[in-house]
Amino acid sequence: MNDTRTLRIALLGAGSVGSQVANLLLTQADEFAERAGARLELAGIAVRDVDAPRDVELPRELLTTDAKSLIEGSDIVIELMGGIEPARTHILTALNSGADVVTGNKALLATHGAEIFDTADQLGASVSYEAAVAGAIPIIRPLRDSLAGDRVQRVFGIVNGSTNFILDSMDRQGLSASEAQRIATELGYLEADPTLDLGGYDAAQKAAIIASLAFHTQVAIEDVHREGIENVTAGMIEGARRAGYTIKLLAVAERLQEEGGEAISVRVYPALISREHPLASVHGGNNAVYVSAAAAGDLMFYGAGAGGLQTASAVLGDVVSAARRHIAGGVGVGESARQSLPTAPIGRILTRYQVTLEVADEPGVLAKIANIVSEAGVSVATIEQTPSADAEGRAHIVIGTHRAREQALSDTVASLAASDVVERVVSVLRVEGE
Amino acid sequence: MNDTRTLRIALLGAGSVGSQVANLLLTQADEFAERAGARLELAGIAVRDVDAPRDVELPRELLTTDAKSLIEGSDIVIELMGGIEPARTHILTALNSGADVVTGNKALLATHGAEIFDTADQLGASVSYEAAVAGAIPIIRPLRDSLAGDRVQRVFGIVNGSTNFILDSMDRQGLSASEAQRIATELGYLEADPTLDLGGYDAAQKAAIIASLAFHTQVAIEDVHREGIENVTAGMIEGARRAGYTIKLLAVAERLQEEGGEAISVRVYPALISREHPLASVHGGNNAVYVSAAAAGDLMFYGAGAGGLQTASAVLGDVVSAARRHIAGGVGVGESARQSLPTAPIGRILTRYQVTLEVADEPGVLAKIANIVSEAGVSVATIEQTPSADAEGRAHIVIGTHRAREQALSDTVASLAASDVVERVVSVLRVEGE
Repeated sequence: MNDTRTLRIALLGAGSVGSQVANLLLTQADEFAERAGARLELAGIAVRDVDAPRDVELPRELLTTDAKSLIEGSDIVIELMGGIEPARTHILTALNSGADVVTGNKALLATHGAEIFDTADQLGASVSYEAAVAGAIPIIRPLRDSLAGDRVQRVFGIVNGSTNFILDSMDRQGLSASEAQRIATELGYLEADPTLDLGGYDAAQKAAIIASLAFHTQVAIEDVHREGIENVTAGMIEGARRAGYTIKLLAVAERLQEEGGEAISVRVYPALISREHPLASVHGGNNAVYVSAAAAGDLMFYGAGAGGLQTASAVLGDVVSAARRHIAGGVGVGESARQSLPTAPIGRILTRYQVTLEVADEPGVLAKIANIVSEAGVSVATIEQTPSADAEGRAHIVIGTHRAREQALSDTVASLAASDVVERVVSVLRVEGE
Repeated sequence: MNDTRTLRIALLGAGSVGSQVANLLLTQADEFAERAGARLELAGIAVRDVDAPRDVELPRELLTTDAKSLIEGSDIVIELMGGIEPARTHILTALNSGADVVTGNKALLATHGAEIFDTADQLGASVSYEAAVAGAIPIIRPLRDSLAGDRVQRVFGIVNGSTNFILDSMDRQGLSASEAQRIATELGYLEADPTLDLGGYDAAQKAAIIASLAFHTQVAIEDVHREGIENVTAGMIEGARRAGYTIKLLAVAERLQEEGGEAISVRVYPALISREHPLASVHGGNNAVYVSAAAAGDLMFYGAGAGGLQTASAVLGDVVSAARRHIAGGVGVGESARQSLPTAPIGRILTRYQVTLEVADEPGVLAKIANIVSEAGVSVATIEQTPSADAEGRAHIVIGTHRAREQALSDTVASLAASDVVERVVSVLRVEGE
């Protein structure tokens, strides 16, 4: 192609994803030129330390510590530094200088998304972020574009590969939580500080982004109810298995029809899911997202949730799309107009529960327990007593409820805990996907 | 929004998908206006007979038999008439009059895609066709955009809901092929003339579209090797089950590294797939597509493969995207530049096979058979003899091969058929997904 334009690409960050993106831009330049309709020239890579070790060897002359100069004069800026600052400032600089932005920064979008998208809209620029959620799996584009003519009712799925690896190892290999964490750390699934993953913070950021797109509203990270997997034990996983379930850290975003009008609920927590459900077969570090829409019905998207090379695929898909847009001219197509749907507190959600109690192993206990639950207005679906294995004569009672309001369930659990026949509330788990 | 523009939408066809599209455009106009940034005004619906019964009641004043007048002056034309003509002429008229086109017409795209896409490119207009493949499942946009920065190696999946319903009923309920077909017809899964589905023609059209996008090349319908499910019997399904497989009609598109350079293979046939494989769990009329890409790894997309309302979701996603583009200005972003990859004949594909033979039940037969196969250069993975259940003393031998070239396998089967110990070649099935 003789008349091919050249677009200048600035890359910010050369970590596990950034170095793969740089490498692919350099080695597959001809293919990208064909697909984008323009040569994508990697003008430079801004890093903190030009001498730091990289996953992939990169040409020394492309590395710079001067991100600002690199950004100015670029057509497309790829932000893969992570963190809030200076990423936020760089993205705003890029948009103001007329560049389109591609980012994988979920933390930034979950906290400063409104500012960034509004700026892009005003300037007619685009911000793409397929890499921010579920690695290589196309989920942003389907929600934003493919389902733009539909009404999404519910999105739920596994969006954190590290915790899925841990829970899957506990389930399939019978490991303890600490063993599974140790292996996950060795294999690079967990960062030095694992709190972001284990505590569900990473999944909550992704849930905020997904819910914002799915419901055309602005969901702040503070609106996401978040529970991590820190309290999930091998015993709970084993109990789940016996009952035909496995435990997954799920992100759930759904519309609620409330008396005062429509609301949404966005939450992340470890939940029971039937072993027959397709999400139960999502092993290792993989991710999968279920979308239920009014017209389309149920859709599922599955793939690698992380990994430098895999995530680079998502980044480069966005880069090629941004390049095509640049060539085609016209202003950027912004986020669809945002409604302002209220977020319902966790007490208002409706789901099923499984409550495990430790009780004195004596006659009449099961009936007493069943009474307490029914009196609280929660409908019991199953109740099972397992005789004690220990010397102290304690038994376990496992209660499965029908769909109930979380608030009613919490009240019930409080009544159970206060009852003289209950020694201890062992666990309370939500049951999803049914 | 006071400054909202209005875009005129022309709908061609009011069948099961078209009537749902019309209904949603009329009843959810406010939501579409918010998401598209423009009011989408349904200017008219071109039909052959304004008095024909419809799935959904439509305002009589919108119906017209004059498609040409309706198209002129429209901003977006939705073609859901099906068939080649007059659909082709209408789409070309629409593009020439400056409209963007949304279509679900796989037969047309598989045969006249090049003409239509070239016309759109020259005019700077867009042609969207998410609804043409796998109903509501977003697969076109992920292949065209999300994976534009990656290198797709292989796409394979279930893209015809009718045949999946039949095969699934045979597998799960033990029905005969004719019983399953009768039920599929009753439930509306099969047309009055079921050849298009049963013969694999519908799946082949979709495979051509998928392969063209995945490999950035032009695949004609004639390039697709096609076998239908007409010869799949209850006995074959039962035999597959005993061996841990199920039978699915698969569309496969893959790159082949050949001595003379790169080629592709695109084919549709009933194949064995392990019951452990996620595609084995795709039940009823659902579709699922697996994509393997160099960077992204394995991705899966799952959902409803057909249905008027479900497919309408895909159409309307395209309509909203086209509207956004219309508002944003700029020229349409055409199909990515097309390579011209040669299509390898079926004899050159590499896969595993399962061959079932009827043989005389006498000593030494199994060894003889194994010899014939080995001498032909095909490597045997498993070979099993089942004693005869009939009075005539015939046994079945089932041979599972390692990966072999189809040509070598065909030659082997010919040698087996000619051997004096083989009474009959019962079935030859490819094994996919391993």
